[in-house]
Amino acid sequence: MRFDHAGIATDDAEGLTELFGTVFDAPLVHEERFDGMDVRFLDLGNGCFELLEPREGGTIARYLERNGPGIHHLALETDDVEAALDDARAEGVELIDEEPRPGAWGHEVAFLHPKSTGGVLIEFVEHG
Amino acid sequence: MRFDHAGIATDDAEGLTELFGTVFDAPLVHEERFDGMDVRFLDLGNGCFELLEPREGGTIARYLERNGPGIHHLALETDDVEAALDDARAEGVELIDEEPRPGAWGHEVAFLHPKSTGGVLIEFVEHG
Repeated sequence: MRFDHAGIATDDAEGLTELFGTVFDAPLVHEERFDGMDVRFLDLGNGCFELLEPREGGTIARYLERNGPGIHHLALETDDVEAALDDARAEGVELIDEEPRPGAWGHEVAFLHPKSTGGVLIEFVEHG
Repeated sequence: MRFDHAGIATDDAEGLTELFGTVFDAPLVHEERFDGMDVRFLDLGNGCFELLEPREGGTIARYLERNGPGIHHLALETDDVEAALDDARAEGVELIDEEPRPGAWGHEVAFLHPKSTGGVLIEFVEHG
């Protein structure tokens, strides 16, 4: 699987968009309101930062309260999330999402439980 | 800048090597003892996981004690770490490393302070 993006929990998506654009040459290539969040993708050429700023309660809002801003998850691209979930399940990996679900940018996504993957929250992403 | 790797603090590099190899198709492509750690790079095709398992005290050992295993940093590739540090400094980013220093796999590296970059620990990497 290829690296797709690193999800960053933030309370200042606009500030990070400007900073990462300037310092890392990572331009804003997509922005949408999704699941109560301002979601922004900054392009690194071979993957993205995904900035996640909650505008109402939810998973990322709770994450920020507990942990403060920072890296939330790593997303890997696959051409078949359902098959990837089957493979992970067969290896004993606990899943957060038993089935793919719609994610930001029109992608199909599913998350694995970090307690099965070395404390790393992994997202599978299938592009449309 | 391009995505280079995601650094993962772990107390089980061998177990994650096997799991990530099987579930994420990310084979082990480099391993070394560096700075008191077992350091392993697992290839995603467009970047790597870098597993960091301390074998003695140090930064990652302290990180594991405080936070448990998980994502430690994100590394971005540049062809000139020194110039990238100058640009970051000019934008007011606080640096952990004022100058490039030798990193794993023969790379030149430097870290930025996460308090300047949205809580995300960023490493600049220049391949030899």
